[in-house]
Amino acid sequence: MVRTVVVTVGDELLLGDTIDSNAARIGRALGELGAPVLRRETVGDEKAAIAGAVERALADGDLVVVTGGLGPTPDDLTREAVADLLGRPLRRDATVEEALRARYRSAGYKDLPETNLRQAMVPEGATVLPNERGTAPGLALEHEGSWVVLLQGVPRELEGMLAGPVRELVQRAFGDRLRAPLHRRLHTTGIAESKLAERVEALLPAHRGPVRLAYLPSLRGVDLRFTVGGETDPAEARAWLDRMESALTELEGYFYAGDDLVEALARTLDESGRTLAVAESCTGGLIAKRLTDRPGSSRWFLGGVVAYADRAKVDQLGVPPDVLARVGAVSEEVARAMADGARRAFGAFAGIGITGIAGPTGGTTEKPVGTVWYAVSVGDRVEAEKRVFMGDREAVRERSAQAALNLLYRTLRGPT
Amino acid sequence: MVRTVVVTVGDELLLGDTIDSNAARIGRALGELGAPVLRRETVGDEKAAIAGAVERALADGDLVVVTGGLGPTPDDLTREAVADLLGRPLRRDATVEEALRARYRSAGYKDLPETNLRQAMVPEGATVLPNERGTAPGLALEHEGSWVVLLQGVPRELEGMLAGPVRELVQRAFGDRLRAPLHRRLHTTGIAESKLAERVEALLPAHRGPVRLAYLPSLRGVDLRFTVGGETDPAEARAWLDRMESALTELEGYFYAGDDLVEALARTLDESGRTLAVAESCTGGLIAKRLTDRPGSSRWFLGGVVAYADRAKVDQLGVPPDVLARVGAVSEEVARAMADGARRAFGAFAGIGITGIAGPTGGTTEKPVGTVWYAVSVGDRVEAEKRVFMGDREAVRERSAQAALNLLYRTLRGPT
Repeated sequence: MVRTVVVTVGDELLLGDTIDSNAARIGRALGELGAPVLRRETVGDEKAAIAGAVERALADGDLVVVTGGLGPTPDDLTREAVADLLGRPLRRDATVEEALRARYRSAGYKDLPETNLRQAMVPEGATVLPNERGTAPGLALEHEGSWVVLLQGVPRELEGMLAGPVRELVQRAFGDRLRAPLHRRLHTTGIAESKLAERVEALLPAHRGPVRLAYLPSLRGVDLRFTVGGETDPAEARAWLDRMESALTELEGYFYAGDDLVEALARTLDESGRTLAVAESCTGGLIAKRLTDRPGSSRWFLGGVVAYADRAKVDQLGVPPDVLARVGAVSEEVARAMADGARRAFGAFAGIGITGIAGPTGGTTEKPVGTVWYAVSVGDRVEAEKRVFMGDREAVRERSAQAALNLLYRTLRGPT
Repeated sequence: MVRTVVVTVGDELLLGDTIDSNAARIGRALGELGAPVLRRETVGDEKAAIAGAVERALADGDLVVVTGGLGPTPDDLTREAVADLLGRPLRRDATVEEALRARYRSAGYKDLPETNLRQAMVPEGATVLPNERGTAPGLALEHEGSWVVLLQGVPRELEGMLAGPVRELVQRAFGDRLRAPLHRRLHTTGIAESKLAERVEALLPAHRGPVRLAYLPSLRGVDLRFTVGGETDPAEARAWLDRMESALTELEGYFYAGDDLVEALARTLDESGRTLAVAESCTGGLIAKRLTDRPGSSRWFLGGVVAYADRAKVDQLGVPPDVLARVGAVSEEVARAMADGARRAFGAFAGIGITGIAGPTGGTTEKPVGTVWYAVSVGDRVEAEKRVFMGDREAVRERSAQAALNLLYRTLRGPT
């Protein structure tokens, strides 16, 4: 096994101004590569602290990944700290310098700012890892059989480095010592974690060999992740994962394909050339936003009405005022009329209507906070559901939006 | 000074399944209290690893805060690891046990599940820190003049603990050794970070004494945070901060009050009893979502139209079809007609219209990706602006939504 230790550098990480999402990026990338992270340390922008952390990391790691403190400003000290610690003086690297100059010129600068020349300083004997998405390259140093890799911290650039040059370096350096795990991830929505776990545990075989199962809940559903560690032969691991997945076929009604329910829904609509419009009250635009987060959504999404005031439900969506007066805005009748109204107003094949009490106030004994009615209108069919969602305003809005999208997805795909 | 070291525990943190946001929560809370975090270490769910990290932390910390690994399942080992390390055997605490039982019963369980009894185990001599938002209490142990505090990791519960019992404990334990910094935060939007920095640096006095300035950029703008460390006398610190703020009055046109521009806008609308409706194309519901994220928004937000298809712009908002045909959907004329159309369709005092190319495709030489026209209609006045926003689809949508909200905020408040 390769023992990996991560060091993240930055006062902002210790002060809590910045959440250390890079640590998670590195953890995922190296775990997938078969060099899982054993330990992580975070220190501030201070040379002695950085050197101390890297020294401790080298004491128990074969691979030490350091991120942060490689920018052009005086508080970026990682390069100096590591060069000193390992006794590798910094030299200006002509190739790196030329690449920096070229990139600044092509971005419209006259030339490289003097202060950024620091980013061309490379410890003696280091391998330069090209950063195609930005200016500061990565640096890799071999030290007494271990490797120290320095990476800058702009998330998009870091991701490019991890997927490209870092991956190649680690594979070259550690080769057959890497043990990449195999995963299979099943996305579910519409079933609570505890209920899902009960059914999953009853369906899976008692003997699961090398398979570990994680339940990963979010406001949009619960993912099941099956993992077989890299010590198992890959063909055998795949057979184990197939066995697990096929044991769960009767839960198919809760599964969706793709990383996101909107992706699955978009594919269904796109393939059939069908269009969608939405009418939202409690979710206030959240469903339309999620649909249009997706590039290309204009092919199948025509538009929506956020009918926050009751009058808007009448004027924009044709909800009958007497129905509103009789049963109230949070009701099956109004959800159905909204779904239908959205479909007709935009001339769409399908419509969603959603109305509820997101909180924190506005609940009653009969309709407590979290009560949501949602409906979908598809062709001549209208389906409606009511649920009382748990959690705060954000949770109720996210959960109910997901439930409405799921009802549409199920209705479009027909009975499973 | 109090030296604080943080240890976070969990395989999911190392694997990158979970981003370590609790570390940031703890960093902020202790920094504000005057016990800033010096170093942080993250280890997996392994007893020896946890003990090792706590031991290293005690070697250079006066205050060691450990979070994670305090749940009821067998992989929660923090309690055992620390009890062993400090030689404080675990005892079942009758008071904690009774509180756990009561909480489970009131949540509808028949009784405490057997496995959760582990959460009633307390190291000898530990102080129990009540967790009013959940089941697992915090534990604090004094050890050779230092303090070790164990906190469970559910974010909402952790925040409650940090704001309440942990704060009290730290104040009691370290009292006059705490050095709380003073901050002043100014929120800006509508000006790029580099331009803002240029103007700010020119306006501020050359001598800034103990004041440090951080630029905190996000997709919604750039915050300026002035900080004076806790070693400065508070009255003097406040005078320094006042001096900085008053040096920047000519930038007031970029400032807004409150933590969020929607908060500032909501206050302006609420106080004047005015109402708002929106018409969105490229932002696809994002503006409506942001407005309705806010509890109580129904007092001033009437609703919106997401007019994604051109036909929806005509049918729902009354944009003249010949204008659309002549100048295209991304144009000043259409943005103005949308703002006006939203206002009229919902009978609102003010309207926002926004239309643009969020990308990644759909750009032309004349209208590249990122081109957005937005307009506000207030009374008989319509104001429109065009900008070309940088970044990916999400960035263009977030930035343009913020710009449109800002134009409305400035228009409602009149010239500054």
